[in-house]
Amino acid sequence: MTRMKILTERELRTIVPLDSDAVACVENAFHALATKAVAMPPILRLDIPEHRGEVDVKTAYVPGLEGFAIKISPGFFDNPKIGLPSTNGMMVLLSSRTGLVQALLLDNGYLTDVRTAAAGAVAAKYLSREDSSVAAIFGAGMQAKLQLEALALVRPIREARIWARDAVKAEAAAHELAVRLGFAVKAEVDPKVAISGADIIVTTTPSEAPILKADWLQRGQHVTAMGSDAEHKNEIDPAAIVGSIYVADSLKQTRRLGELHHGIAAGLVSPDADFAELGQVIAGVRPGRTNTQQVTIADLTGTGIQDTAIATLAFARANAANAGTTFES
Amino acid sequence: MTRMKILTERELRTIVPLDSDAVACVENAFHALATKAVAMPPILRLDIPEHRGEVDVKTAYVPGLEGFAIKISPGFFDNPKIGLPSTNGMMVLLSSRTGLVQALLLDNGYLTDVRTAAAGAVAAKYLSREDSSVAAIFGAGMQAKLQLEALALVRPIREARIWARDAVKAEAAAHELAVRLGFAVKAEVDPKVAISGADIIVTTTPSEAPILKADWLQRGQHVTAMGSDAEHKNEIDPAAIVGSIYVADSLKQTRRLGELHHGIAAGLVSPDADFAELGQVIAGVRPGRTNTQQVTIADLTGTGIQDTAIATLAFARANAANAGTTFES
Repeated sequence: MTRMKILTERELRTIVPLDSDAVACVENAFHALATKAVAMPPILRLDIPEHRGEVDVKTAYVPGLEGFAIKISPGFFDNPKIGLPSTNGMMVLLSSRTGLVQALLLDNGYLTDVRTAAAGAVAAKYLSREDSSVAAIFGAGMQAKLQLEALALVRPIREARIWARDAVKAEAAAHELAVRLGFAVKAEVDPKVAISGADIIVTTTPSEAPILKADWLQRGQHVTAMGSDAEHKNEIDPAAIVGSIYVADSLKQTRRLGELHHGIAAGLVSPDADFAELGQVIAGVRPGRTNTQQVTIADLTGTGIQDTAIATLAFARANAANAGTTFES
Repeated sequence: MTRMKILTERELRTIVPLDSDAVACVENAFHALATKAVAMPPILRLDIPEHRGEVDVKTAYVPGLEGFAIKISPGFFDNPKIGLPSTNGMMVLLSSRTGLVQALLLDNGYLTDVRTAAAGAVAAKYLSREDSSVAAIFGAGMQAKLQLEALALVRPIREARIWARDAVKAEAAAHELAVRLGFAVKAEVDPKVAISGADIIVTTTPSEAPILKADWLQRGQHVTAMGSDAEHKNEIDPAAIVGSIYVADSLKQTRRLGELHHGIAAGLVSPDADFAELGQVIAGVRPGRTNTQQVTIADLTGTGIQDTAIATLAFARANAANAGTTFES
């Protein structure tokens, strides 16, 4: 008889909010990536062109965690025509000791949203100035909102500006966030104005051409670019990387599909140029920001260790709260 | 509200026996592999050395099938010490149109056993002589038994010999099979004697050195080697490939981890030598056996299309029988 827990999106939203534990588990996972024998194989990718579909499967083993996640992320871009979301997906949590399935997390991408925002908080915690209080967010979608919420967990944010290509969406997001977070959040129509005087800038768009120019950046600012998870996406002017403190979530990945990729493609950065990874900065084995004048850039493309970390947290929380459905077979 | 079906191993054993439909669905999948735009990405592999664990994730999309499977196959080799099987695993069946999860098949590897045996039947159907009646099976495990059962679905088998390194297990398997299949099945201690006069030979062992010598082979025989799914495994004397009609399940795979791999490593076969694939023989676009005197060899390493085929069959059968548990979220 084997036993597994099944958790629905609704249950996961209740037991795994974006909170300091979520940030801590992702921080610990990045620390492990820099200090332990983490196994994180390349993503498995299946394309189904006749239905405009694609599926990514990611996994990673983090020594010390009792389980590891296999995340299945489908994107089917004709789904909205029939009233379904484009993306959905789930995670399977397996025991690191036996390989037995411990839990099915039917999260429809919710846990990915949380672990992605949590990584933004971790980047800000280690790279932004401690007194950072003004945030500028590019984008007005789910991640734009979660990234601001995540920043507020690690820095004393008291003001935020939202810029998005669609000004109406930016207004709506700003209003929603002001109510939810309890500080001033305003939409801004000019992206340059939005970042002027900001301490932390987070870009969350699927842009394919830079939306943040290098010469807009001011001393002491921190930028987290988390929108690019594919070769053709590009949010930050490649010139911004030169002369800033650049930190990758996974250098192997950002060379291929992050902002760094475009710096390399533009000939501004050598393909084998060495940069610190976020986990190394956390572990203190490589420096991040060393003074208040530097511009820091965190290039986040998303890693399997974050999935394993958040799935492990979800399982622990579900057990503690006796949440979910136990399925025996 | 989304709805998925959960099927346990017990339920799957009832609704998906090794039968002619199972053979037909695998045959159709190989046909598609040769004639349609099948997508079958490389296997995702995660190793967890400190717990002697490994996980393979396979998937394939077969145009025309409503779903595609993502198979998670863990192998944790210390499990027997705590009373658990080394291998278990499950399949997730997703809709080819929407990416939504249709079913979770908690089969613990059972469906893999069936689709692997079914491929043996398909190989024999297309490569062995039609009047084949004597089978020799190397190995005495689960696949040894299923392969013989599968052969009996496609050829008029009336006698079988079982050879295994462990003669006691060979005796037990022979006895069990004779009772189950209703024809003469005997254990044989000498592998050369076992195959002498046999029409079809199936090797099902995890051997790392050839257990079938090239000069033992007789005119008109067909050999299916299905034991090798990794670089270091090798059941067939590489010299046997030379001068026989060699057919791969997936040439890309057998060059890397099948019997062919050892022929290439031994310098007997060119690394880019071209051979027919099973699907091409089924589709009639390349010849297999063209007379009764040739020796044919089918090199089966296991493919994701078989998983997608059997998972699709399982889901259809479950719906028809109203089997399984419906989970709404």
